[in-house]
Amino acid sequence: MNASPIPPEFDRQMMLRCLELARQALGKTAPNPLVGSVVVQDDYNIVGEGFHPGAGQPHAEVFALRDAGEQAKGATVYVNLEPCNHYGRTPPCTEALIKAKVAKVVVGMIDPNPLVAGQGVERLKQAGIEVIVGVEQEACQQLNEGFIHRILHHQPLGIFKYAMTLDGKIATTTGHSAWITSPTARQQVHQLRVACDAVIVGGNTVRRDNPHLTTHNQGKPNPLRVVMSRKLDLPLEANLWDIKEANTLVFTTKDADPDCQEQLQKKGVEVVVLSPLTPKTVMTHLYERQFLSVLWECGGTLAASAIAEGAIQKIWAFIAPKIIGGKTAPSPVGDLGLTQMNQALTLERVRLYSIGSDYLIEGYL
Amino acid sequence: MNASPIPPEFDRQMMLRCLELARQALGKTAPNPLVGSVVVQDDYNIVGEGFHPGAGQPHAEVFALRDAGEQAKGATVYVNLEPCNHYGRTPPCTEALIKAKVAKVVVGMIDPNPLVAGQGVERLKQAGIEVIVGVEQEACQQLNEGFIHRILHHQPLGIFKYAMTLDGKIATTTGHSAWITSPTARQQVHQLRVACDAVIVGGNTVRRDNPHLTTHNQGKPNPLRVVMSRKLDLPLEANLWDIKEANTLVFTTKDADPDCQEQLQKKGVEVVVLSPLTPKTVMTHLYERQFLSVLWECGGTLAASAIAEGAIQKIWAFIAPKIIGGKTAPSPVGDLGLTQMNQALTLERVRLYSIGSDYLIEGYL
Repeated sequence: MNASPIPPEFDRQMMLRCLELARQALGKTAPNPLVGSVVVQDDYNIVGEGFHPGAGQPHAEVFALRDAGEQAKGATVYVNLEPCNHYGRTPPCTEALIKAKVAKVVVGMIDPNPLVAGQGVERLKQAGIEVIVGVEQEACQQLNEGFIHRILHHQPLGIFKYAMTLDGKIATTTGHSAWITSPTARQQVHQLRVACDAVIVGGNTVRRDNPHLTTHNQGKPNPLRVVMSRKLDLPLEANLWDIKEANTLVFTTKDADPDCQEQLQKKGVEVVVLSPLTPKTVMTHLYERQFLSVLWECGGTLAASAIAEGAIQKIWAFIAPKIIGGKTAPSPVGDLGLTQMNQALTLERVRLYSIGSDYLIEGYL
Repeated sequence: MNASPIPPEFDRQMMLRCLELARQALGKTAPNPLVGSVVVQDDYNIVGEGFHPGAGQPHAEVFALRDAGEQAKGATVYVNLEPCNHYGRTPPCTEALIKAKVAKVVVGMIDPNPLVAGQGVERLKQAGIEVIVGVEQEACQQLNEGFIHRILHHQPLGIFKYAMTLDGKIATTTGHSAWITSPTARQQVHQLRVACDAVIVGGNTVRRDNPHLTTHNQGKPNPLRVVMSRKLDLPLEANLWDIKEANTLVFTTKDADPDCQEQLQKKGVEVVVLSPLTPKTVMTHLYERQFLSVLWECGGTLAASAIAEGAIQKIWAFIAPKIIGGKTAPSPVGDLGLTQMNQALTLERVRLYSIGSDYLIEGYL
């Protein structure tokens, strides 16, 4: 059964379907990537679909092959990430594809792990399977940017999100900030949180804003809520200490207030002492917890420190078309020690989105 | 000679041509509006074009009718502003249109002056000429927004332009600001200056940035360069004092340094004492100078004062996708006395433009 030539446009459509399937596990797969797979027979009919639901469970290809059953034979399998060729918690997907006698595999992107990159594809080719690589590659890399960053840099991807007025303020002179952006933009932030494994604030944000930092959406996973507080000079009542909504982890130092620490732990909040307590040590800890991406929703001082230590790679800047003024009203980023404008950190791959009445500028440092 | 029915799409095209013609006198017509006119025969052929080149000179319709000559008879005349019906420095355009025996007049917008609004149209109808009003009305209002504001509010339109980083800074902590935006965006600013009759800065901007504030474009008109300085504690050498490039006017108070005042006047800089010296009194003075629109390119303190006094109606915010940081680095707008975020001044009719690598957000207060 020979597959007839499949047009590139159809290949792209199927790859986008893989990404759509993969996204169903958004926020649930760490440290694994988001992967979806589609099995197509040579009459262009989808005969099987699947996605990787989370670490320890079978990979996307396995679910898709199971779904296709006997019809996998001679079929084309689409998958947004190169099939694995090693025994991890599950057997290698390459062997499952060979065993199912598929004719062709279309891969979105090669596995970024330098130790495995390309070996899955090689194994399939050796077994006589036709392999195409790089369909919708950019979209595939975008979806798994956290996974890729983690593999290459041994740190979660750090994303700094802030909302400011058109005159660059994240709060009024008195610290009042509810709300800068429209409800539509705030819902968008809740959605962005779904895709992150942790969301970090400093003690100031807890004291001033008493945030929830949840996805506000039943069924959608909540990121781990993380607070950095050197002394634990924190309120004993705060939305973040209600762990029925989502888990909370507080990083502190040996100088922490022991009473506060005890009270937080009694409420079920996890307290971890880090020495030194810096954005970098926090990211290393979260890497060891297997996290892919971490959302910084902190104030300017902590943000500046996180940027300076290389803990932030991506910016999500929400801009509301309003003017609040205030010489001492806070701005998104504190001191970076840059005194000449040409020292500014330039964003790359900048995109602009219109969200309700607000704008979102996204870019990479 | 009856005009055949003209399709609305053709009407719109001709009105846009009027605006294009009108724009040739950008920055040169104050206190008059920008007006262009096109004469079209019933075979859809343009037989005459004209625009108003400046105060004291004939209006656009007169030039277009002259251009059309005998062919104006029975023709359709397009004009972006209602033809005048009164004797000013020139005779009324309505009479010229009637005398030329045109069949139809298509008007972009009614004259906003409450004393004349609609009377030009009435006069034409009385003379048996068919009149259509409101073709591309929004674009016509946009082009003459300065003129409209001046007529209705007895002040020039105030536009506040600033360039900031994505973290809301207009300079570094040391005041360094060259350059925030790309050359493409800065050229755009030069173009925007062409459309304004004056550009205002405070003494701080002169001391710190030593700007030129010109259109950097031979042949294009330069706005009057205006400095507000209470004490005239200004450098004796500055680009703004070189009036070969463009004229400069310094507003000051009775507390001004007499030596500096004398030196400036020797260089040909005009010095005017205002009491009190505020954005509002400055705008009133510039209104009396017949200006239509004034560009505020000042720092945050003066900008806040101008906004608070109602001297600014429009915002041009250039945003460069870069991060500079700095807790004390200046932001675009100083203290407005607003302490709650819901007191923020919300922009209306917001538009976003992508300019090179930067963004321009435009809106109205």
